[in-house]
Amino acid sequence: MSAVNIAEKFDGITKHWFPHIVAEANGQHVRLAKLKDEFVWHSHADEDELFIVVKGTLQVHFRDRVETVNEGELLVIPKGVEHKPIAEDEVLLINITKAEAKHTGDVESDVTVDIQQMPRA
Amino acid sequence: MSAVNIAEKFDGITKHWFPHIVAEANGQHVRLAKLKDEFVWHSHADEDELFIVVKGTLQVHFRDRVETVNEGELLVIPKGVEHKPIAEDEVLLINITKAEAKHTGDVESDVTVDIQQMPRA
Repeated sequence: MSAVNIAEKFDGITKHWFPHIVAEANGQHVRLAKLKDEFVWHSHADEDELFIVVKGTLQVHFRDRVETVNEGELLVIPKGVEHKPIAEDEVLLINITKAEAKHTGDVESDVTVDIQQMPRA
Repeated sequence: MSAVNIAEKFDGITKHWFPHIVAEANGQHVRLAKLKDEFVWHSHADEDELFIVVKGTLQVHFRDRVETVNEGELLVIPKGVEHKPIAEDEVLLINITKAEAKHTGDVESDVTVDIQQMPRA
């Protein structure tokens, strides 16, 4: 494969909470997403999630605390842990997780994007 | 876990080609490394590698071509493919691969760092 310019791929994303798959390695997807406002509470039974915040400030709400992830920071959401991401202002996020991981985990919501429908940017 | 500031972790790295493990998810390590000059030719029989260049320009030599990975770009090195990274000027790299992956792959070299010896920053 060729090098992928992350900023250019983000430029092609027009919809919030709509992951684009830009690479795959070891059965995991590298997904880029633009986030704004609130997502749904959810967890992933079998998948950890690695978040890298490229722009903005992400608040990851857990049931017992809130973790702030600033630009240039990363956070791992362990499997099975309920969380709810909130982006007061727009956040650009790299999300690395297993290729079979639904982004809303075990919750089916009107924001759920089927993995087959995620654009491969 | 808590958010990890990537720049701060890089500040703590003093040696080139000496990966620091800053997170683990789905059996994969997030390793940060500072690169300068040439690494050894090697491949990884069972592990893809995801490179994200945070600073600088990395030249990844393959046997038949060279791929340039600029700041803000990512590249996947598929398992089994021989490669040799070269950083003419210093490069700051995020390397995500399986936790059991040796950074020099199947090659034992004087630059090889045993995984157990990689600092957990």
